Amino acid sequence: MSVQPVVSPAEDKAMARAIELAARGLGTTSPNPVVGCVLLDAHGIVVGEGFHAYAGGPHAEIVALAQAGERAKGGTAVVTLEPCNHTGRTGPCSEALIHAGVARVVIAVTDPTPRATGGAERLRASGMDVVLGVRASEAEDGNIAWLTSVRRERPYVIWKSASTLDGRAAAADGSSMWITSEASRIDVHRLRGTVDAIMVGVGTILGDDPRLTTRDLRTGSLAIRQPLRVVVDSQGRTPVDARVRDAAAPTLVATVATFGKGPDGRVDLRAVLAELHHRGVRSVLLEGGPKLAGSFLAAGLVDRMIYYVAPKLLGDGPAALVGAGVTTITDAIDLDVLDVDRIGPDLRLTAKLRSPTKEA
Amino acid sequence: MSVQPVVSPAEDKAMARAIELAARGLGTTSPNPVVGCVLLDAHGIVVGEGFHAYAGGPHAEIVALAQAGERAKGGTAVVTLEPCNHTGRTGPCSEALIHAGVARVVIAVTDPTPRATGGAERLRASGMDVVLGVRASEAEDGNIAWLTSVRRERPYVIWKSASTLDGRAAAADGSSMWITSEASRIDVHRLRGTVDAIMVGVGTILGDDPRLTTRDLRTGSLAIRQPLRVVVDSQGRTPVDARVRDAAAPTLVATVATFGKGPDGRVDLRAVLAELHHRGVRSVLLEGGPKLAGSFLAAGLVDRMIYYVAPKLLGDGPAALVGAGVTTITDAIDLDVLDVDRIGPDLRLTAKLRSPTKEA
Repeated sequence: MSVQPVVSPAEDKAMARAIELAARGLGTTSPNPVVGCVLLDAHGIVVGEGFHAYAGGPHAEIVALAQAGERAKGGTAVVTLEPCNHTGRTGPCSEALIHAGVARVVIAVTDPTPRATGGAERLRASGMDVVLGVRASEAEDGNIAWLTSVRRERPYVIWKSASTLDGRAAAADGSSMWITSEASRIDVHRLRGTVDAIMVGVGTILGDDPRLTTRDLRTGSLAIRQPLRVVVDSQGRTPVDARVRDAAAPTLVATVATFGKGPDGRVDLRAVLAELHHRGVRSVLLEGGPKLAGSFLAAGLVDRMIYYVAPKLLGDGPAALVGAGVTTITDAIDLDVLDVDRIGPDLRLTAKLRSPTKEA
Repeated sequence: MSVQPVVSPAEDKAMARAIELAARGLGTTSPNPVVGCVLLDAHGIVVGEGFHAYAGGPHAEIVALAQAGERAKGGTAVVTLEPCNHTGRTGPCSEALIHAGVARVVIAVTDPTPRATGGAERLRASGMDVVLGVRASEAEDGNIAWLTSVRRERPYVIWKSASTLDGRAAAADGSSMWITSEASRIDVHRLRGTVDAIMVGVGTILGDDPRLTTRDLRTGSLAIRQPLRVVVDSQGRTPVDARVRDAAAPTLVATVATFGKGPDGRVDLRAVLAELHHRGVRSVLLEGGPKLAGSFLAAGLVDRMIYYVAPKLLGDGPAALVGAGVTTITDAIDLDVLDVDRIGPDLRLTAKLRSPTKEA
């Protein structure tokens, strides 16, 4: 049984809204978290809203305070993440809230970053009423990539897979276009828009020569922001004219020569993730192929799985997952299925790895 | 746009109830259909209910009429299937309804059997008001095994499969106990209780030596009625001491010697199904293994799939389906996913084969 913090219905509703607002920043705020803020005046009326839209841009609290102006005085700031207490590219939000005369701050999740933390303490010290933990698990889920990357010091890894109901990623003759529906493929582009990097193995490059860009599938037009493209390519076999090397987005080809060998003799995946983390990448979408997914799973480096299942049977053809290091049933990798959605005719399963702490 | 028959709210509600009642007969009425009946008096009050419980037992209408007695006079019989017009093991239901003075009969589905048909006509000829097609698709779905078997002159085939999310039926070392949860295994025993026969390939017998009985998994006690056990065993390799040969239920071992060869050189599956149909089997639960399922799918002999998916990943090990005769993606076998349910931690998908008319 968890103790629920005491907030008014207006504050609770404002937090739900703040979480929604925060989500609008997904994919553009890294290396920063997504944050949403709703300002209520002394009567509980919404007088300002904001979210953090991009790194270097104003924080959610600042946007909401600017909207509220004088009406913030004596009011309540409802914010998804503990307001920062440090001067980075912008001034500390805690000072801005104090300066605006806000009387109370309602927070969902505390900031685990050593240099940003202390915001709640600073606010309390100034005499403000501070409540922590409101809709915490919801807010945490909305910020899961960033929070995980801070805790593990590596990007949050989402493995995206697509197969038939019997687990085949292609037919016996290698044909795979298309296993899933257009609706699912559009959904994948939406998903790409929420991450900082897209990763594939060199086999996928050699087999499908994908662009790995985020675009409108109907018009072909590219999204303004493109995630970093990462090719895991032990021997450096990515052709010079591969589409992934075009100018549409930055690309990193990760070879053994640059990153060294992991325990399986291929590219050291931890070293690649460390480099990505260093570059400010907080979330990676691992798109294939089956062997690279197996290596990530074997290393305990997958946090979430998004699995598009087409209502089809093949009975032969390559599997969607190979070599995850499991040899007997009791060692199977356990998942928590969070959601099952219908995307056109397909199913989309969202699952969390139950023990991502396998990491050595 | 389909034209909906005009019935009163009381009659519509009675049909929903009749469909519920019919389902209680599933698994015990073969070679007869499941049928439910609700009798309303002249004021629309329920005065009798009945369902067909077992072959040779009274029909649903007779049970309901016996309950209603004199109150049936001037009332309405609401019945899921067209009342029969022939004297089989029981007298014709149409005569019984006329004799009881019922004024109106509301029917969901007409009887496609040549010898039983004509009930609606007989009732109309007697001056009765007869309405057809009320909640027809719902009632048809409840009787789908029997209706399909009548139309195709072979049993309705339900393929039951269980695998990990990545489509593995066992781990690399062959271990498979248990892929799915106890909740799913209990659900399979419930499913067995609704069919007339359970079928496996000899590989499953040699590998797992299953009992293939319907029983309470916790106490081990057998259900009163046991489906016929069928082993598809080309070369007659089922050991004399296999559990499937015990006295708990009847067993048919189908060999090439008895049933001849199909196009794949193994047992002629159509001949096996014809024999089962001849024996009064209207529904078969195909439980494995992967190759037998592949042969059934390749022959277009699967009507429905019930698929238990465990939230686990293996990455290696035998697939749940092999050799369904598909070599390229455009020939993939299409399914309509009807339901996705959570059974304990597992998912249960119920799907209909989209083109079961592949049959030659």
